[in-house]
Amino acid sequence: MLDAMPAGHRHRLLAHLRDQGPRSRAELADVLGMNRGRVLAELDQLVRSNLVREAGFASSRGGRRSTLIELHPDIRFAAVDIGVSSIDLEVTDGSLHPVAAVSEPADVRLGPRRTLHRVNEILAKLQVDGAFEQLTAVGIGLPGPVSFRDGIPVSPPIMPGWDRFPVRDALAREHGCPVVVDNDVNIMAVGERYGGVARSVDDYLFLKLGSGIGCGIFLDGDVYRGTDGCAGDIGHMWVDDRGPVCACGNVGCLESLFGGTALARDATALARSGKSSFLAERLPHRPELTAEDVAAGAVDGDPACLNLVRSGGRRVGSVLAGLVSFLNPSMIVIGGGLAGLGHVLLAEIRSVVYRRSLSLATGNMPIVMSELGPRTGVVGAAVLASDLAFGTQEQE
Amino acid sequence: MLDAMPAGHRHRLLAHLRDQGPRSRAELADVLGMNRGRVLAELDQLVRSNLVREAGFASSRGGRRSTLIELHPDIRFAAVDIGVSSIDLEVTDGSLHPVAAVSEPADVRLGPRRTLHRVNEILAKLQVDGAFEQLTAVGIGLPGPVSFRDGIPVSPPIMPGWDRFPVRDALAREHGCPVVVDNDVNIMAVGERYGGVARSVDDYLFLKLGSGIGCGIFLDGDVYRGTDGCAGDIGHMWVDDRGPVCACGNVGCLESLFGGTALARDATALARSGKSSFLAERLPHRPELTAEDVAAGAVDGDPACLNLVRSGGRRVGSVLAGLVSFLNPSMIVIGGGLAGLGHVLLAEIRSVVYRRSLSLATGNMPIVMSELGPRTGVVGAAVLASDLAFGTQEQE
Repeated sequence: MLDAMPAGHRHRLLAHLRDQGPRSRAELADVLGMNRGRVLAELDQLVRSNLVREAGFASSRGGRRSTLIELHPDIRFAAVDIGVSSIDLEVTDGSLHPVAAVSEPADVRLGPRRTLHRVNEILAKLQVDGAFEQLTAVGIGLPGPVSFRDGIPVSPPIMPGWDRFPVRDALAREHGCPVVVDNDVNIMAVGERYGGVARSVDDYLFLKLGSGIGCGIFLDGDVYRGTDGCAGDIGHMWVDDRGPVCACGNVGCLESLFGGTALARDATALARSGKSSFLAERLPHRPELTAEDVAAGAVDGDPACLNLVRSGGRRVGSVLAGLVSFLNPSMIVIGGGLAGLGHVLLAEIRSVVYRRSLSLATGNMPIVMSELGPRTGVVGAAVLASDLAFGTQEQE
Repeated sequence: MLDAMPAGHRHRLLAHLRDQGPRSRAELADVLGMNRGRVLAELDQLVRSNLVREAGFASSRGGRRSTLIELHPDIRFAAVDIGVSSIDLEVTDGSLHPVAAVSEPADVRLGPRRTLHRVNEILAKLQVDGAFEQLTAVGIGLPGPVSFRDGIPVSPPIMPGWDRFPVRDALAREHGCPVVVDNDVNIMAVGERYGGVARSVDDYLFLKLGSGIGCGIFLDGDVYRGTDGCAGDIGHMWVDDRGPVCACGNVGCLESLFGGTALARDATALARSGKSSFLAERLPHRPELTAEDVAAGAVDGDPACLNLVRSGGRRVGSVLAGLVSFLNPSMIVIGGGLAGLGHVLLAEIRSVVYRRSLSLATGNMPIVMSELGPRTGVVGAAVLASDLAFGTQEQE
């Protein structure tokens, strides 16, 4: 479409306006290290495509005052984070600032048609409310393996009906714009790198502890997705032969021992057996106990709850220690719903990783909590949507 | 030095001649997709630098017969693979064909001065014998973590005296040419990708089973070395709380349970206790038993030896299963001295990985033995040396 400039340069120009705000033509040419004439021609074309516009004058650099260029204010990205039991959605402007946000419970097991129908309903309502006229691009994360290239979920274990459902094409048809689909943990890794604690690192792991457990792998400045798009799927890594049978059929997977689902099971058992008076008191008031009850118990000092969190932290830590020795990343970020278990969990994970990983690999490696918290996923989905709209990130 | 052409193009041109043999100027311009005039100017400069030369006429394509260009026949790379107990060395021509090869026992624990002195002695002898007049570049692999950027070993656990020894600079001074230093497992990963079974894949793991255990990580067509250069150091990943205390001080590391050193210890114990009659018969004739005795016992059907190999395969398999779920590679290649344990080992590893890894990740993933065998390391060292001499591989 835009042949004047290689896609990589075009992406850099638009991403610079996204991240740095309005800039003069001269500055943009400097940033790209390119011939000014070529940049001007490209900018003219971007103006005609309604991606950028002129925005008044820059302060003078001595000569003729130059016009500022900014992203077009009508640009809108929809960023969607589909969880096992939730939909988080933001509509952002070109600079990824949210202009509208919706979070609501959901059940991914109802299948792709009902889930995406609900996403479309939310977006239609936001459109009527004036959040956008037309979407520029959509980014969406799903809680299972995704073929990034094809924009479809592939063999997701806990999502009946989603296998190979054409998520990208269905949304693209509905909204008349390009759509990017990725795994929920990958969008979190992208989000934390873009606007969170991993801002300054090129190689890091984002560990998501939620209903399930997954790991976003960020290498050389980009998400590593693996041959089949399922890299980072560590929930079914084996940790203990003596562990319970996992939903996947194997014995002693990480997720069968720790994670939101395992914690709910263990908390209910502790409540019923009376081993935790704190949890036993809560049980009659709820349909089922959850990780939040365990977190409350840990804060309250309930020994059984503290023990659940600590032993879970040790399990996660032992897997993470191996991954740190294996990949030698610059940083570990921990996010997802269970990050709410807080510093008891973090302390346990740190203790195991720093003791068990190769010391050379942990010397300068921080293990920290996500800075963006529950927004991490939608921030990453918005970044991917904008990267898609702005052209490929690849070097020519 | 060579400003006419970006380093990435220059590397592609020379690597094409290295891998495809002599080519006409016209073909080279086509391959690079570049302006012919610019390619001709660059080739003239490469001729003056003695990196390429004219080599007779190409078969006619209809018009004027064009001259073939080939790598200069005097190009020589020294490729060195330093093991814990061996030096393997090849001198190759520009196309990486060996013109001389030396393998001899050594002891890396004697320190860098004596080890590198021996490498230089071998090279001096080969020079006198006419293998080369002047080295173009040297590639060398060391059995421990290496800072690739700085060309020095960093905190190698089993190499007293090597920590931060300036290996690259010492060899560069001695031979008056550029030198590249890497970890031994990384050079094996490079070698197998260049000339072995991993030729056609961009993302794979090279598992080295030798005295120690390590893993070369090949991602997106290049070795992934990690933040501190110690990525792939899986020998000290934890596998069993009930395991022995490892040389590193932790309990139950993979290397404390399997690998050449662990096998030698276990074989000696089985021989002394009489639990293996096969090994007991061998013990009086040797200073110590080694993995080779275990391999011989397994081939002979000795139950204790077979059991050692099988349980080792299960250990390695369980670690590998986790790494496969984590990284979702296209292929696993197994090499190193213990690859000689053969199909019993391979069968056990395959069985565990295919059972325990995410099925999506193993669907199309072969687990195979190294094709290059003991030469894998030197082949990789030669590739790295030539890449260094031919200019950076990076895209501009």
